Order: sequence, then C-alpha cells, then structure tokens
Amino acid sequence: MHRLPPRHLPRVLVLGLVPIAAWFVVRPLLDPVPPLPALYTSVGFSIFAFLSTVYLVLALGQTFVKAGLKGGDLLKPYRHEIPIPESMGLVCASVYILLLMLFIPFAFSNFIMNFASQKHHLEGISVVEFPHHQLSVYLSSLLSLLIATMLGFLDDVFDIRWRHKLPIPIIASIPLLMVYYAERGNTHVVVPLPLRFMFGTVVNLGPLYYIYMALLSTFSTNSINILAGINGSEVSQALIIAISVILNDLLYLPWPMDFRIPLHLLGNKAEVEFGGVWSAGMAHGSRELVERHLFSLYFMMPLVAVCLGFMYHNWYPARAFPGDTLCYVTGMAFAVVGIQAHFSKTLLLFFIPQIFNFVMSCPQLFGLVPCPRHRVPRYDPDTNLLYPSTTEFPKPPSRITNVTLRTMAALGLTELALHPSTGAIQTATNLTILNFLLVRLGPMNEKRLVQVLMCSQVAGSVLAFVVRYGLAGLVYDGDRR
Amino acid sequence: MHRLPPRHLPRVLVLGLVPIAAWFVVRPLLDPVPPLPALYTSVGFSIFAFLSTVYLVLALGQTFVKAGLKGGDLLKPYRHEIPIPESMGLVCASVYILLLMLFIPFAFSNFIMNFASQKHHLEGISVVEFPHHQLSVYLSSLLSLLIATMLGFLDDVFDIRWRHKLPIPIIASIPLLMVYYAERGNTHVVVPLPLRFMFGTVVNLGPLYYIYMALLSTFSTNSINILAGINGSEVSQALIIAISVILNDLLYLPWPMDFRIPLHLLGNKAEVEFGGVWSAGMAHGSRELVERHLFSLYFMMPLVAVCLGFMYHNWYPARAFPGDTLCYVTGMAFAVVGIQAHFSKTLLLFFIPQIFNFVMSCPQLFGLVPCPRHRVPRYDPDTNLLYPSTTEFPKPPSRITNVTLRTMAALGLTELALHPSTGAIQTATNLTILNFLLVRLGPMNEKRLVQVLMCSQVAGSVLAFVVRYGLAGLVYDGDRR
Repeated sequence: MHRLPPRHLPRVLVLGLVPIAAWFVVRPLLDPVPPLPALYTSVGFSIFAFLSTVYLVLALGQTFVKAGLKGGDLLKPYRHEIPIPESMGLVCASVYILLLMLFIPFAFSNFIMNFASQKHHLEGISVVEFPHHQLSVYLSSLLSLLIATMLGFLDDVFDIRWRHKLPIPIIASIPLLMVYYAERGNTHVVVPLPLRFMFGTVVNLGPLYYIYMALLSTFSTNSINILAGINGSEVSQALIIAISVILNDLLYLPWPMDFRIPLHLLGNKAEVEFGGVWSAGMAHGSRELVERHLFSLYFMMPLVAVCLGFMYHNWYPARAFPGDTLCYVTGMAFAVVGIQAHFSKTLLLFFIPQIFNFVMSCPQLFGLVPCPRHRVPRYDPDTNLLYPSTTEFPKPPSRITNVTLRTMAALGLTELALHPSTGAIQTATNLTILNFLLVRLGPMNEKRLVQVLMCSQVAGSVLAFVVRYGLAGLVYDGDRR
Repeated sequence: MHRLPPRHLPRVLVLGLVPIAAWFVVRPLLDPVPPLPALYTSVGFSIFAFLSTVYLVLALGQTFVKAGLKGGDLLKPYRHEIPIPESMGLVCASVYILLLMLFIPFAFSNFIMNFASQKHHLEGISVVEFPHHQLSVYLSSLLSLLIATMLGFLDDVFDIRWRHKLPIPIIASIPLLMVYYAERGNTHVVVPLPLRFMFGTVVNLGPLYYIYMALLSTFSTNSINILAGINGSEVSQALIIAISVILNDLLYLPWPMDFRIPLHLLGNKAEVEFGGVWSAGMAHGSRELVERHLFSLYFMMPLVAVCLGFMYHNWYPARAFPGDTLCYVTGMAFAVVGIQAHFSKTLLLFFIPQIFNFVMSCPQLFGLVPCPRHRVPRYDPDTNLLYPSTTEFPKPPSRITNVTLRTMAALGLTELALHPSTGAIQTATNLTILNFLLVRLGPMNEKRLVQVLMCSQVAGSVLAFVVRYGLAGLVYDGDRR
C-alpha cells in the first residue's frame, strides 16, 4: 500500500452547491439589488473556493509527492511506508488569493457600484460598497497574503530553521505597512480609561504603530505555526478563529431585523443593540465601521471555505499536510483584517489558546529548556494512543530552569520525572498545549486530541466575546477605532 | 571538483557604489528638491538591487543545490560532474519586488509629494510625481509580478510541460486586468491612418482589449522563455529590452536641456523635439504621458539592475541558471509597463528577435515538425564549439511539413539532410534563432553565440526606434494613447 484510499468529493455536493454559488455570484446584477451586493458575490465565491479546494487537494496530491513535497505521518503505524503530500496549504492559498483577485471587479468596479447606488440612495445608511480609494488597501492586503504564501512555500522547500523564520512574516507585512504609510493611515490609539490621566484620551503612537503592526503579523503567523503536529491542528485553529472574526463582523452590519442582547449581564454599562438597517447594528450608523467589517468579511469568508475544504483531506487520518504555507497565509490573513479593519485588539482575543501555547513554550523557544526537533506527543502503536512527549536533561538543569519547571509543574502545565535519589529533574513533558492537554486529560487518540483542541479554541472565542463586549466596557468607553 | 570557482563581488564595487546609491535614495529629502524626486530614489534603489543580486546569487547558490534546485550545464564537458544551481531567477525576482515595495512611500506618500510640490509649483509642467490614485495601478502591477514569480518557481519545482504552461502568464495578468476594469481603464485604440475610412479615428475594443492585454503578457513571457538554452541568453534578452524601454521613456521626460534630432532623415514628417523642462520632451507638455513613462522607468531601472547583477553569475561559463522564474518575472514586467504605460505597440517592436524566433519555431511548437525535449545547439567537447542541433524524421515527413521545411531551407532558416537516393528529408536543424545563427555564421563557441545573440537584440532595438519614430509617422498622426 503506497497510498491511503483518497477522499473523493461527493458528487451530490457538487451538484447541490454549484447552482447555489452561481446564484450568489450573480445576485448583485439581478433586480432588486440587495443592500450589500458584493457580500452576496463573496458568499458565492466562498462556496466555489470550498469546492475547488476539496477537488484540487485531491487531484494534486500525487503531483506534490512526485516533486518531493511529502512526509511521513509521525503519529501513525504506517509512518515510514506511506508518503503523505506536504505543503498542500499552497493549494488553499492559491485558490484563496485567486478568488480574492477575481472578486475585485465586484467590490470596486464603478459599473456595479453605480448600479447599486441608484437603487439604494434613499434607504437609511447608504452603504453600497466600500469606497473606491480602498482598492489600494485591498491590493496591498493581497500582496501581503501572496508574499506570505510564497515565503511559506520557500520555507517548505528550503526547510528554514525556526529561529531564522520567526521574522519572515515581517517581510510579508511590508506592503501593508508601505501602503498604510502612503495612505496616511491612522496611528492614533484610544487610551484605556485607567491610563487617561497620563496620556489623554487618544495617543499618537507614530512609528511605534508600524512596529506594532509588523509584530502582530509575526505573532499571528508563528503562533499558529508552533501549535502544530497532529492531523488537523493547524487548519482547525485557522477555521475557528476565522469563524469568530466573521461572527464579530456580522454584529456591525445593517440587518433587516433589530434585536437586543442583555449585555449588562456580562458587566457592560449599557444595553447593546444589534442589527437594524438604519442603525447598522453595533456600527451605530458609522459608515466607516460597516465598511471595515465588510472588508474583513470579504477576506474571512473565503478563508473559512478553503480551510473547510482542506480539513476534509487533513482530518484524521490525514491524506494531506498543510505545510508552513497554510500557517503563513492564514496567519497573515488574520493580521490583514486586524490591521486594515482596525480591530487588532479584538483579534488578539481570539488567539487565547495560541497565546497560552506561546507563553508556555517560551522556556523551550528561548533555550531555558532543551528543545527537540519535534515536540509533538509520543505515539504508542500498541494502544494507538498519544502520550505526552518529553525532553531530557542529561545533566541536572541550571537553577533558573529548575525554578521555572517546578513552578510550571505546580501549575499543572508539565509533568516532571525526578531522579529517585538526588531529586534532580531528569525529564519534563514538552511545553506545548497539546502535551498539556494530554497531561491533564490523560492519553487519548489523535482524533480525540484534535477535537479537544478545537473545543478549547471555541471556548477561547466565547471568552473573547465576553471580554470584548462585556468587560471591555470597564476600561474603554464607546469610542472605537 | 564539485563546484566552479565562485565569482565574488569585488569589494571596491561595494565601497564605491553604496555611498552613491545612498545619496540617490535620500536626494528627494535634500534641498533643493529635484523636479522628479522619486526618480532619484529609484536610481539609488536600482544600484542597491544590483549589489544585492550579485551578493545573494552567490551566497544562496549552494542552498539551492542542496534543496534539489540544480542542473547540469548541457553544453559543457563537466555536464555530469558539476551541479549548477537552477531557478536562481527567484533571487532576482525577490530582490526586484522587495525593492519595488519599499519604493512605495517614496513614490506615493503625501509627505514627500507635498514637500516636493511646494518647491516646484511654479516651474513649467508641474510633474511632481504620479498621482495618488495610481497607487492601485502600481500595486496591481506588483501583484502580477509576484504571481509570475510564484508560478515560475512552481514551474521549476513541478516541471510543468510546456504545452500546459503556455497559459500560465494569463493567470498572472489577472490582477492587472481586474484593476484595469475596476479603474475603468481606457479600452480605446487609435486606428492607423489607412483604416480610418472604415473604423474612424478611435475605436473602442471593449472586451477585446482585455484579451489583447492577456495575450501580450503571455507573449512577452513565453517568447523569452523559448529563446533559451545557452549561458546568458535569457537574462541578456531581458536586459537589452529593458534598456530599450528606458531609452524610450527618457524621451518623454522633462530635461533641463533641449535638443532636436533630424527625424525627417528617418522618414518622419516633422522634426521631433526632445527634452526641455517646459515642453517635457516628446510628451509635448502632456502631464499624463510624463507620468506613464515615469511609471515605466520605476519598473525598468531596477529590472536592468537585477539583470545585470544576475548576468555576472550567469555569464559563460555560468555559475547559476535563471530557471523559468526569471523569464516569467521579466516577461511580466514588460507586459506591465506596456499595458499600464500604454505603449504596448512600441514594446512589441523591442521583441523583434523574439517574434522572429517564435514564428520560426511555430512548425515545431505546433507539431508539424518533431520537437525534441531540448532544442539547444549541439556541443562538441573536442572543438569546444556549438553546432546546430537537428531533429530527425524516422519516416518521410508529410507533404505540408515537406513544403514548410523546404521553404524555410530556401530562406536560409534551416539546413536539411536529404536521403541520398530518394531525396526525402532525413534531418533538419531545429527551428530556433540560435540554430539559425549557427547555420548562417558557422560553428562558434557558446560565449560567442550569446554575444551574437545580444548583437541581434541590439540591432532589433535600433530597428524598433527607426520604425517607431520614423515609419510610424506614415500610419499614425501625433495622437498617441
């Protein structure tokens, strides 16, 4: 056996989804024109993106294997027998970016915009489409995504060491930063209430803001990349974060209905009103806020689609691996919407598991604790279960390492094996969220572990919404940027 | 011996050029501001591009070899012993695109533009910089270049068959076309004088214009790609075409001096005036024409720089191969300036040797004559000379093939070997410009052949200028688009 039985695209899915997608794509051209025409097209394109990804990942798998882009599945009994195509995130990224390019005329062409605005000039907040000058912002975002894809693929081909690849996303963020500068982007931030006595209400960060943007893209990219190693882990994180961003965006759109949520239960000072054509949901009639969140939706909906399509093949037991390419392009997509649509703080809240994983990893990333080449859990072929993997200390660790590890063990983050007589640390479980979950919940199989990981990501997003729309009222007033 | 002695970057070049480049980059910020500030920066960036390319192609060569991106030099005695790094056009493309991105704030930021316009608001044609709304055009060009780079590299990694890769540049031209459409780009063309009785002065090509643009990028990319095979052939074509475009652009800029060239000698109806701040050379005071040719210069000057830098290592005997990546990115760069700066007809004139090679290749490309995997000339290790390579006819060719080949032989384009008794064609020299040169001029070594090729490219450009500024007056009046 040289290949796992492939997962085909069910024909019923194709026959069912293609007409629906086609209807969504052409909907803006049909009378009566909907209030947000390009949004329909974006939904249609996303469905096509899903179908294309499912089809192409299957169709191109063996081409990748032949070109040497392959790897054994570390946590499987057939590890050395069956090569799995690697770097197939390239296919997702290509479909994603191609569709975002083909979307340009729908979002920006004068023809469609004029057509739509004639119909809607009287109806409430006149959000026909985001304005023409935003085209360069959109294009700079595409450039960043494309560079991220390219660098991710080069990373896969040349196998760059992780210490060298940490700053790679900064290169990909150059177009974002350059256009942000050329367009005189806003570098002011709202100061939290407790600090206003020092800085005032708004402070201009100037060049610091650019550093912040570059670091944001570095973080979002690498934090997904280091939470990897089991089937479906990378793509499921990206999927859940993207869905969370979409849910957040939807709160700011003009909806035909109007509803309230009792946010005072979460600690907010006032009721928050969602929806309504006239008040445009949480945008409170701000055309700019609606446009920003539309922009975010245009990037996030196809991302969800390609992630879903890829997950179909990447799900346990995986038929395709994402490679660094997928982590780079998804991470950059999040950075793009966070920066361009100005909700980077909210975005970071959706990265709670990644932040946890990163903080936990620091002792290994920065050399305090030995870091093996792979930190994925250990696979036991007899039980088919995963156990926490460990890092070894051939000689007793230094004092600071000792204190760090014993503190982490006391917090339940790692498990130590001590020398029976001296009590010195001999091994510690590797400091990743995956090993942490196995330490806390006991050994489980790979499929179960990725499900637990996804649950923790969902829980993180729920917490994020509570913090954003509940607790944030304590440190910020309604002034959003 | 596993490696040819590398060509190092002479330290005196670094020490001499770095301060000059730095001065050019910061020149726009120094008082008095020059009339075209970003042009200075572009020159400075180009010098840096040259130095970076020379350095990086050397530094990364062995990394490419290790990653499997390598090939034997077909026309050398050490063909099987020494691997030469392949696809190193990727380095050129990366340096090129990175610098074009870093150039954005210099060309488009309000700060520099305002700074410059304050100084120059009184001096003749007020070309401070090309306007802000052109940013999206610039970004779409970068996207196309980046996609071309990516696809070229994928072509190198996956080794796509040439029939499949012919349409690849169309994908790369999508951003160009989409933004052209969204920006309501001009689809009118001026009709040549002899046809005006039918179509009028100007005709709107509509969708045909988009097809024309897509085909232009396909042609410019593939025509360079098929004129390949000997050390330095690809990069020298790109270099000479880029220099020709630059010379043409310079005719449209406002120069401090003013001079005339007696173009009536070339058959033009009127004297043509070059230079002069007030009349802005051949732009005749048209701000738009000056801006278009500035745009072209911003793309062509760094291209010349990276080509020169790469040629340093690609020159006979080559230390690095360009791969398809270089052909794709340079071809797309020419398409970009031809389309965005609206001089596609002039541009095509600079492709005379490529058009000749393409037309000559057609019988082999379209299956009339057998097409071997490589059509490069044949190398004779004893004499170190190149001879025309041949394609064989195991059975007598069909009638149409017979007629085609005998006609081409009569024109001196190929040399046939006939069966001594039946007179049937047994072999024919491959139908490329390289074999044609060897047929006409006799065997020569590889270095000499590339020099001859370069001479023919230069001759083609001289002819192009004669046609453009001499004969074109016969079929076009002064109305340029």
